[in-house]
Amino acid sequence: MITNNQIKFIRSLEQKKIRIDQGLFIAEGKKIVNEILNSSLKIRSLFATRDFNSLTIKGSEFENYEIDEKELERISFLSAPNEVLCVVEIPNHEIVFSELKQKLSLFLDNIKDPGNLGNIIRIADWFGIENIFCSMQCVDAYNPKVVQATMGSIARIKIFYVGGEHFIGELKKALPSTPLQKEKGVYKIFASTLKGKNIYNETLSKNGLIILGNESEGISENLIRLASERISIPPFGMAESLNVSASAAVICSEFRRRNLT
Amino acid sequence: MITNNQIKFIRSLEQKKIRIDQGLFIAEGKKIVNEILNSSLKIRSLFATRDFNSLTIKGSEFENYEIDEKELERISFLSAPNEVLCVVEIPNHEIVFSELKQKLSLFLDNIKDPGNLGNIIRIADWFGIENIFCSMQCVDAYNPKVVQATMGSIARIKIFYVGGEHFIGELKKALPSTPLQKEKGVYKIFASTLKGKNIYNETLSKNGLIILGNESEGISENLIRLASERISIPPFGMAESLNVSASAAVICSEFRRRNLT
Repeated sequence: MITNNQIKFIRSLEQKKIRIDQGLFIAEGKKIVNEILNSSLKIRSLFATRDFNSLTIKGSEFENYEIDEKELERISFLSAPNEVLCVVEIPNHEIVFSELKQKLSLFLDNIKDPGNLGNIIRIADWFGIENIFCSMQCVDAYNPKVVQATMGSIARIKIFYVGGEHFIGELKKALPSTPLQKEKGVYKIFASTLKGKNIYNETLSKNGLIILGNESEGISENLIRLASERISIPPFGMAESLNVSASAAVICSEFRRRNLT
Repeated sequence: MITNNQIKFIRSLEQKKIRIDQGLFIAEGKKIVNEILNSSLKIRSLFATRDFNSLTIKGSEFENYEIDEKELERISFLSAPNEVLCVVEIPNHEIVFSELKQKLSLFLDNIKDPGNLGNIIRIADWFGIENIFCSMQCVDAYNPKVVQATMGSIARIKIFYVGGEHFIGELKKALPSTPLQKEKGVYKIFASTLKGKNIYNETLSKNGLIILGNESEGISENLIRLASERISIPPFGMAESLNVSASAAVICSEFRRRNLT
């Protein structure tokens, strides 16, 4: 059973303002909800049909409602609702600059398309990139369309919304970007641009920050200036550009492949 | 000016059956229409607002209508209509097996999401892959959502809908898949799977066919059996899978990078 007030509340979480005010977001479907149940994210309430079968659900500390398919249809944001929907607390991670030092991270500047952002979060998860920084102009990562496109990776990746220039400035202050001892501990900032150096020939580090820009405008000038290197995937055909999530996949693959040992 | 019958006809091209009966599809927006104007595709009619400025349009052989923004809104499939829409003939390419011999091509098995197919066509165009074969179960490449997602690459890439097993059987008959003379002319068929060999360590040829499978089911068993190699992008994190268009980007990049000379 679900009340009209609950339905109204869940539907209201489609709006970014309400998600931020409440610190809550929606996740749906068997696969994604199971990944959230097995993660450190905190579920506030869960609405499942009798079909939903999860080992983790019993004895949990959240509110747990059995609903029927008709009720699920009323709360779902999907065209084909899939057994379960849950309301989850938006995690509030702290940026620890010293922890970023040895890691590869992404910075997304003004990514507008929910499918692209969701896809990039999933790509980061595949390639073992734990931290994604988003400029304030990016679409909200807890938008239901983004959450669905991550296919559950939203449960594992830490996402930080930051002022781009300020954040990268702080990062550069905190982390050594020039060699100290035999290149050890050097932290580089790579910008993915259309006219950078051929990524296949550049030295790619095990750690660092990769900046990816807006779908049509690329990276804003102020941010490009803060990068230590500009890299590009060379074209072999006639397309003017690659979709930003396709670029993210190729770049993350290339960084990981080069640092296998 | 546009008549009600024209509006009705254009809107009807959202349906696959009508596109196939008429041999026509819709493309929209400045960038994409300009790419089509500069390609070998044949435009049947073009509807543009006064803002649309194209060098190629004058003296062309198609019907050319000036319409106002309100009229464009009535025929457009976009949430934000963009100056121009055109009706284009679906090209009818012939498969020439001997021409495929030296080329790298894609085979898409049962790709359902229009955004994924459009993105893969754009990725193929970036990496200089001219021919894409689609199983009959794939979403239609001339669906307006696919066309938009290609960002104009639909104007350059040859797309063939074929019976998967029959086509790959014919391909294997036509092209030598075992070494004849010093590995020259060998044609390999690669299947992208979750449990294949690490793509970073495998020998990747300059030519051949790469099979990519359905978003949740992967490649159908009958097709996998026809492949000469199974390849995978190794995981570095916890995600269960990569989106098929992200996989396509990484795989195409890897094939091209290895065969730069």
